[in-house]
Amino acid sequence: MTTQPHRVVIIGGGFGGLTATQTLRRAANVQVTLIDKRNFHLFQPLLYQVATGALSPANIAAPLRSIVRKQKNARVLMAEVTDIDPQAQQVILSDGASVPYDSLIVATGARHFYFGNDQWERSAPGLKTVEDATELRRRILYAFEAAERETDPAKVREWLTFVVIGAGPTGVEMAGAVGEIAHHTLRHDFRHIDPTSARVLLIELGDRVLPTFEPDLSQNAMQTLQKMGVEVMLKTSVVDVQPDHITYKQGDQFVQLPTHNTIWSAGVQATPLGKLVAETTGASTDRAGRVIVEPDWSVKGAPNIYVIGDLANYAYEGGKPLPGVAQVAMQGGKFVALQIMRQLNGEDTTANQFHYLDLGSMATIGRAAAIAQIGKVHLTGFIGWLAWLFVHLMYIVAFENRLLIILQWAWNYFTRNRAARLITGKTPLMNVDETGYLVSIPEPKHVVEAER
Amino acid sequence: MTTQPHRVVIIGGGFGGLTATQTLRRAANVQVTLIDKRNFHLFQPLLYQVATGALSPANIAAPLRSIVRKQKNARVLMAEVTDIDPQAQQVILSDGASVPYDSLIVATGARHFYFGNDQWERSAPGLKTVEDATELRRRILYAFEAAERETDPAKVREWLTFVVIGAGPTGVEMAGAVGEIAHHTLRHDFRHIDPTSARVLLIELGDRVLPTFEPDLSQNAMQTLQKMGVEVMLKTSVVDVQPDHITYKQGDQFVQLPTHNTIWSAGVQATPLGKLVAETTGASTDRAGRVIVEPDWSVKGAPNIYVIGDLANYAYEGGKPLPGVAQVAMQGGKFVALQIMRQLNGEDTTANQFHYLDLGSMATIGRAAAIAQIGKVHLTGFIGWLAWLFVHLMYIVAFENRLLIILQWAWNYFTRNRAARLITGKTPLMNVDETGYLVSIPEPKHVVEAER
Repeated sequence: MTTQPHRVVIIGGGFGGLTATQTLRRAANVQVTLIDKRNFHLFQPLLYQVATGALSPANIAAPLRSIVRKQKNARVLMAEVTDIDPQAQQVILSDGASVPYDSLIVATGARHFYFGNDQWERSAPGLKTVEDATELRRRILYAFEAAERETDPAKVREWLTFVVIGAGPTGVEMAGAVGEIAHHTLRHDFRHIDPTSARVLLIELGDRVLPTFEPDLSQNAMQTLQKMGVEVMLKTSVVDVQPDHITYKQGDQFVQLPTHNTIWSAGVQATPLGKLVAETTGASTDRAGRVIVEPDWSVKGAPNIYVIGDLANYAYEGGKPLPGVAQVAMQGGKFVALQIMRQLNGEDTTANQFHYLDLGSMATIGRAAAIAQIGKVHLTGFIGWLAWLFVHLMYIVAFENRLLIILQWAWNYFTRNRAARLITGKTPLMNVDETGYLVSIPEPKHVVEAER
Repeated sequence: MTTQPHRVVIIGGGFGGLTATQTLRRAANVQVTLIDKRNFHLFQPLLYQVATGALSPANIAAPLRSIVRKQKNARVLMAEVTDIDPQAQQVILSDGASVPYDSLIVATGARHFYFGNDQWERSAPGLKTVEDATELRRRILYAFEAAERETDPAKVREWLTFVVIGAGPTGVEMAGAVGEIAHHTLRHDFRHIDPTSARVLLIELGDRVLPTFEPDLSQNAMQTLQKMGVEVMLKTSVVDVQPDHITYKQGDQFVQLPTHNTIWSAGVQATPLGKLVAETTGASTDRAGRVIVEPDWSVKGAPNIYVIGDLANYAYEGGKPLPGVAQVAMQGGKFVALQIMRQLNGEDTTANQFHYLDLGSMATIGRAAAIAQIGKVHLTGFIGWLAWLFVHLMYIVAFENRLLIILQWAWNYFTRNRAARLITGKTPLMNVDETGYLVSIPEPKHVVEAER
């Protein structure tokens, strides 16, 4: 006689949820259900390469079903979770169906945070999803096209001014990549405008870029950005974002800067499932909406519900929360999966400690330039970039993607080309209404005369 | 003293417009303006590979600016033409700007035609643009996901029934590719449903598939499709298309078939610029909206306005219109460009004849199966597929794309994998409103229990 399998439901197929799923591969008598709104795992660290036309979405995404195809004790459900019922031990899907669980792992991650100014999102989208990335790509490329058609020099300048708000890793990557697009990729592509005249501004509230790194690496990153033509503005706060300008504050000065191209990378908050877990279990959340978890990543009062990754606030060794990076999510996912397996073996797991192994952190700035901080070792420039390249290629899930990305990158590196320079989706040319992301469009009545 | 350059405005960067642009490369004292709504040239013959998750959009698209970067006498404008003024010799853009021309070439191609039933488009999208392709990809892949979550066998069957309407080259390609997805790519990816139980129907009004080919090749294509599990229904007309079913007529029988997945490939019509050219010049159009052109591709009464490609009805040697294929567009574009160059050299070009060189036609059916008709030579099966592969790779514009496509295809061929299996954009899970393409969604209230 076999006992009924232990049902583990995992919400979210990111780094945390996927690692938990795969760790449970060899668990005896466990049935895993991995639920995700999307049908693919997204390698978010390379998302900025999609936003800047260097890679296609499929290059950095792998279908969840492919990844767990051979894992007989796992199934994938493409569905949206709208409720959790800890008493009945089930999650509710948007279509009303319910999925029962014995153990629940919630790993839905984070999204942008506009610090209460949600209306800024339209004018300054962030970068978390594939749709965000193709939308940013559309905006960046369209700005050059709009400038080419424009005759008023002031308006040309508005289109060719790119503002990135927030100098964390994503902001630095985006600023560097937009600088490369303007100065190299599109250099010879236009007849009327000079793409190399584009301004790229990186605005940061703090006193250095990449503040989670050591000061010497921040310094190196800022110098590299400046060499690439990026204007870095520190100790600067953004007080307003509109479709055609932003307002920033430096000291006591308020400055209005005309631009159609603002990119948000200044803050993240937990996805709504964090609030749902807190409401249904009585757990607490922090200011960013993350669920405050116990030392074993479980939720206080609901020992069979775990929250991992960017959705959790884990006060490591009683100190400050672990950072929202892939390594924390993956190690948390593995730990929780092993805890569940040990419990099923009858072990008392209450005393088990989670140990975070800090493998270091890295950020890329541009072509052959990155910084890496691995313990006391600090790498910069080309060496830093090679380390970054190696780590990112090793962690990309599907082999095929790895091969294609190496080829695409090699090609991009030597030619400074970006092949995926497509403006897709709604463009201001296509008579769409105001739903979705749309920039305001000037209405010139001039003659676009060929230069003679 | 130099004379002012002759201004050639070309609308549309497809096969016709791009060939005309490139032919004018060596023209002395000519200024070319290539206008397109999109910033890329799309290799439409491979669009079905995007719709079926085998290639990414960027693999079959090349930025127009990259293509003409080194052509000093050409510029690209990303813009939408809303009017043509033959008297003032200028075209008007959607933002009100005007672009003056001395010679105008209109090459904006064709789009789907629903024979007066435009309301069918929502339920049965066609395949002409990158957005069409990612929308079809989303629908096809989502159908399997929805079936996996469904418990009612009748509803599972509705989701796993795919109907392709129209058995021209696109319809045959789509039916074959959907069959491969169900029978091979997704075969082991689901736990609840069996993807190989999916039905793929190809409905054709005529008495054979691929009616523009010789009967023996049609016969071969039909047998290949049937071996791949596609049900081919000839002499069948579709009388209604709804989100959850279609109604077709065979003989005197009306049959209602429940399905959520209908793909339209039954008809094309000219893009709206055809009507605009006719209205502003007094030229005639045919029933599909194509402009009837003179033997030199010019418009009657407007000798400096040319219409080429799928937008034109060219009665070749006084007989039936040339087909809407890439070769006709490219040869027409080259002829017109050379005519303009000869006129600038002072030649009288009125007596010049356009000669169409029929290089043959081909259609692919599936993995290592295609048909090709090159004069009296008929190729089928693997040999036909090699010919198809060779021709399509030779014509893909950018070298980089060619290399990546070969690699992706080789990988797909040996693994039967399709890497670009992303469900992107609006999905029924995401609480979107009814704008855009949306299928109706059943609302189950059942328990999605893991199999024990």
